[in-house]
Amino acid sequence: MQNELENYFDRLWPICRSITGDGLRRSLEIINELLPLKLTEVPTGTSVFDWTIPNEWNISDAFIIAPDGKKICDFRKNNLHVINYSVPVNKIISLDDLRKHLHYIEELPDAVPYITSYYKETWGFCISYNDYKNLTEGDYQVVINSSLAPGSLTYGECILRGDSDKEVLFSTYLCHPSMANNELSGPLVQAFLYKKIAELPKRKYTYRFLFAPETIGVIAYLHAHGRQLKEKLVAGYVLTCCGDKGAFVYKQSKQINSLADRVAKHVLKYQEVPYEVIPFSVGGSDERQYCSPGFNLPVGSLTRSMYQRYAEYHTSLDNKDFISFDAMAQTVETYFGFVKAMELNDIYRNTIPYGEPQLGKRGLYPSSVNPTDARDKIHNRMHLLSFADGNTDLIDIAELRNCDISLFSEDIRILESKGILVKSNL
Amino acid sequence: MQNELENYFDRLWPICRSITGDGLRRSLEIINELLPLKLTEVPTGTSVFDWTIPNEWNISDAFIIAPDGKKICDFRKNNLHVINYSVPVNKIISLDDLRKHLHYIEELPDAVPYITSYYKETWGFCISYNDYKNLTEGDYQVVINSSLAPGSLTYGECILRGDSDKEVLFSTYLCHPSMANNELSGPLVQAFLYKKIAELPKRKYTYRFLFAPETIGVIAYLHAHGRQLKEKLVAGYVLTCCGDKGAFVYKQSKQINSLADRVAKHVLKYQEVPYEVIPFSVGGSDERQYCSPGFNLPVGSLTRSMYQRYAEYHTSLDNKDFISFDAMAQTVETYFGFVKAMELNDIYRNTIPYGEPQLGKRGLYPSSVNPTDARDKIHNRMHLLSFADGNTDLIDIAELRNCDISLFSEDIRILESKGILVKSNL
Amino acid sequence: MQNELENYFDRLWPICRSITGDGLRRSLEIINELLPLKLTEVPTGTSVFDWTIPNEWNISDAFIIAPDGKKICDFRKNNLHVINYSVPVNKIISLDDLRKHLHYIEELPDAVPYITSYYKETWGFCISYNDYKNLTEGDYQVVINSSLAPGSLTYGECILRGDSDKEVLFSTYLCHPSMANNELSGPLVQAFLYKKIAELPKRKYTYRFLFAPETIGVIAYLHAHGRQLKEKLVAGYVLTCCGDKGAFVYKQSKQINSLADRVAKHVLKYQEVPYEVIPFSVGGSDERQYCSPGFNLPVGSLTRSMYQRYAEYHTSLDNKDFISFDAMAQTVETYFGFVKAMELNDIYRNTIPYGEPQLGKRGLYPSSVNPTDARDKIHNRMHLLSFADGNTDLIDIAELRNCDISLFSEDIRILESKGILVKSNL
Repeated sequence: MQNELENYFDRLWPICRSITGDGLRRSLEIINELLPLKLTEVPTGTSVFDWTIPNEWNISDAFIIAPDGKKICDFRKNNLHVINYSVPVNKIISLDDLRKHLHYIEELPDAVPYITSYYKETWGFCISYNDYKNLTEGDYQVVINSSLAPGSLTYGECILRGDSDKEVLFSTYLCHPSMANNELSGPLVQAFLYKKIAELPKRKYTYRFLFAPETIGVIAYLHAHGRQLKEKLVAGYVLTCCGDKGAFVYKQSKQINSLADRVAKHVLKYQEVPYEVIPFSVGGSDERQYCSPGFNLPVGSLTRSMYQRYAEYHTSLDNKDFISFDAMAQTVETYFGFVKAMELNDIYRNTIPYGEPQLGKRGLYPSSVNPTDARDKIHNRMHLLSFADGNTDLIDIAELRNCDISLFSEDIRILESKGILVKSNL
Repeated sequence: MQNELENYFDRLWPICRSITGDGLRRSLEIINELLPLKLTEVPTGTSVFDWTIPNEWNISDAFIIAPDGKKICDFRKNNLHVINYSVPVNKIISLDDLRKHLHYIEELPDAVPYITSYYKETWGFCISYNDYKNLTEGDYQVVINSSLAPGSLTYGECILRGDSDKEVLFSTYLCHPSMANNELSGPLVQAFLYKKIAELPKRKYTYRFLFAPETIGVIAYLHAHGRQLKEKLVAGYVLTCCGDKGAFVYKQSKQINSLADRVAKHVLKYQEVPYEVIPFSVGGSDERQYCSPGFNLPVGSLTRSMYQRYAEYHTSLDNKDFISFDAMAQTVETYFGFVKAMELNDIYRNTIPYGEPQLGKRGLYPSSVNPTDARDKIHNRMHLLSFADGNTDLIDIAELRNCDISLFSEDIRILESKGILVKSNL
Repeated sequence: MQNELENYFDRLWPICRSITGDGLRRSLEIINELLPLKLTEVPTGTSVFDWTIPNEWNISDAFIIAPDGKKICDFRKNNLHVINYSVPVNKIISLDDLRKHLHYIEELPDAVPYITSYYKETWGFCISYNDYKNLTEGDYQVVINSSLAPGSLTYGECILRGDSDKEVLFSTYLCHPSMANNELSGPLVQAFLYKKIAELPKRKYTYRFLFAPETIGVIAYLHAHGRQLKEKLVAGYVLTCCGDKGAFVYKQSKQINSLADRVAKHVLKYQEVPYEVIPFSVGGSDERQYCSPGFNLPVGSLTRSMYQRYAEYHTSLDNKDFISFDAMAQTVETYFGFVKAMELNDIYRNTIPYGEPQLGKRGLYPSSVNPTDARDKIHNRMHLLSFADGNTDLIDIAELRNCDISLFSEDIRILESKGILVKSNL
């Protein structure tokens, strides 16, 4: 999986994305090779709850010609050099005037910061502090070949149907220019997670995968589909900052004990990467929209090095060196662990509830006369039968034994086939 | 505030108070300079629940003349020398007989203990162990010029009306003779707290301030007003032992999660003095009456060095040296912090509950294009909007962000003015 | 008690018990000297829920004659040498064939393991690894003089009536041959516990004592009496592995907060032996049947060194050296502490609920004028009155004071006699 992840990463990296425009569309086209996306275009001017879809932004080039004739802040070398959503400009200005339009980070002198101005018309450039402090007096030509014009905002979604119309949502954003952990890790993990879920022989839940610009894209999506999600969604996750080697961080939904949260907290216990569970907070990504008080959906987020917790966040240093395709594959597997746990998690009823069933006569007790053989295995089975009271779901049954829910899958199959265990979801 | 506290302390200190009598009345007169008290006299013989108001006790002098003619145990030097509520006596007795009427503390050889006998007629003197052990054989003249006669028990109260008839109670006692932390700190803190609450431009709650003798005074008060408190009281606090530099101790009401308890536990987290939260217990003061099973009112108590936890308690060593007017002023401020938190604590509803409100178009998002500026401030505002679901009160919203409730006051004002937030108390 | 325990131990030790048969009956006869048992015989072939009572097993002798003519694996020296429920055999076989029927534990080279095969017909011997590895080539005569034939399974029970038909159950098993902690400790502790409960001047609860073979015996018992237990049982305990010096382990029922669990957790806090509280699990004894989902009875288990937690478990090393009659007597006392706590645990109502009752006028306040005397005692009394609200039971009242429930027994008697406290069980 790692090689494929890297190939797609390399193709998506150079594109200058924003919350609208052709960079976003080109990126969705590439993602579409991995899963069949249904694209939606929301026209400029559309009202989506409290927001309005802005003009579409496109850009072909941007740079500054220094007094010595050299080209600096070259958009074609690094698209972070231009403030995202800058209006077009082409003029000659003094260094003093230029400085009002320059952004840098003194504490990270090699980094080009990432700056946007979607809803306030302006233009500007981002520059490393080392370059900034070497600027000399003189005339500078500033050129931004961009356009802001009516168009549309694009998002893509894909649905994998299951037996039930109860849904699980995976949601990620596609709107930042060349950044790695805080942009491409989310769509890549989500696309490869799709492939694994699509390969499941059967699915209980219906799975929905959304690729949309952050904030306004998800607000537009909720405007169209929020009512439906409120009816059908049992669990959802926002995929972001999930491609580096950092420990896992699971941010809970506001509901804390939703299926999304219970599954995540259970599965994380039984995998190898260190992890942390934190409460919902607004300093994050699109869980803010899903968990807004009118929706309050069961949507959490599993990340690795989280937004605002690493210095490279929102700078040119959040690049290929910062991430790891091994770690990204591990994140895919962990999210897939959530899916497997949800698929397995049902409520069962022991059909022989008075005293324990005699396992031996059904060939379900180790035939060895030495009962210490395989004691753990038989205790797993007996634990399952003992707690299968028609009310307690499998996650809780596993938590009561302090073991991974997946340990029960074989026993369930066997005990169901013998008629001792029956599914009795509420 | 400290100088004023000290002046009032010095005037109240020498008075010999008891649960009835003129010392109590003179003390209430002095307190009355600080807040307008409505006084109630409950006549001797009145039944108040299980109790009966006793005879009124007054005392003008008491002393012992030793065999060498020297006056010892002089009431005029220290009113702790006489057992509070001693019957009158004037006779000459031997040292052996005298000893039956003397009280001292061997472990604190310089301290005069504080002893009472309200409901069993007796007389006696309290003496330091150092003086006790130097007593010589011979005849002693014991003189107590006291009177026990029908009269009344006095308490004073004061009410500050608010918009609602829901009430907050502050209750303290005035019945011990010259002691500092375990007597004067309570009335002084309560009177100065009154002044701060009286200065508030508006009040949501009605505030009630009670100064009554401990136990029987509060039982008499509850006999008259308990039914009303049960209907209207949302929070109450007993002020005692709150004038020294010790860490804060908050004793919870039996309800544990009453408004009184939630506010105290929240506010204490965000002030500087070390503190401890302990459960309700009967070894204390008038919270015992307020929380008696028939009333079970939401009344807790914030103290500093607590009754029975410091060696000087109930002795002549609980004096001006033991307390600190800076600490007392700090206690006033902390109780006032409780008041401000209660006044601020409402339930709000975000009027744009689907997706987040677009703060930028209302000028509520930092205009800086650099989103890391003022991130904490904007996150506070977004957190408030995200949790303002019409069910969660502000204390809980603050706890969910692990921040002081007062941080939200400015945002509430702004967001209410923009119509995004509306009060929706249940 | 220790000498008596040892005498009975010595008499019960040599008997070869099983889940049926005369060894079981002889053991019940001896136990019957300590408490009057009502015996029940459940005939072979009876269906009890999912199980069927098997043929009765009896055995008179078993041994192997080695090629050198020596008798080894002599049942009369140690009845663990024969697999419990072995079918009869008498033949000469080679060492290779013999080996298929031998069981040993390489890690415990001196121990003879304990093996059963109740429901699968087979025969075999258990041998120490040291003896096993010295076996030489040649012909071996194997002799097992056993019989498997229709008969019955025996259990014994005894009931001590109380004022209420609400019941407390003590259940232990009697079915293993010569083992100490994991066999005889349970019946011995239970029988001596009976004697202490029988001596109580009055009993609130009815006490039931069951001695039955493990698993199938209790399943047979529940088949006959389970419905009744479901109606009447308020607490129950399985007595097993409770005779050595190990720390106490209390395994909770599934209900966690049943009376059985609350009492055990409370009483264990205030006794001297170190202890641990663990959740319900299936790797145990008959609590598995009592807590099966159809019954889910409030049955926990207090053990010392617990099954499967000590190396000697299920071997010849679980013998008299492993246990301690002092420890066994201590276990009796601790279980009796549970009984005393349950008998004491009622709900009371303070008849003077408004303000505190005036204890002094009833002679209930220490007459000493020094209130620090006996402060703890008087605070106990006041705490009891303060929380006696007609809803909170005595265990909770004790937990709220962090003291042993037994501390209240004298105060209850006094306060009831004064009419201040009345029982008001829900």
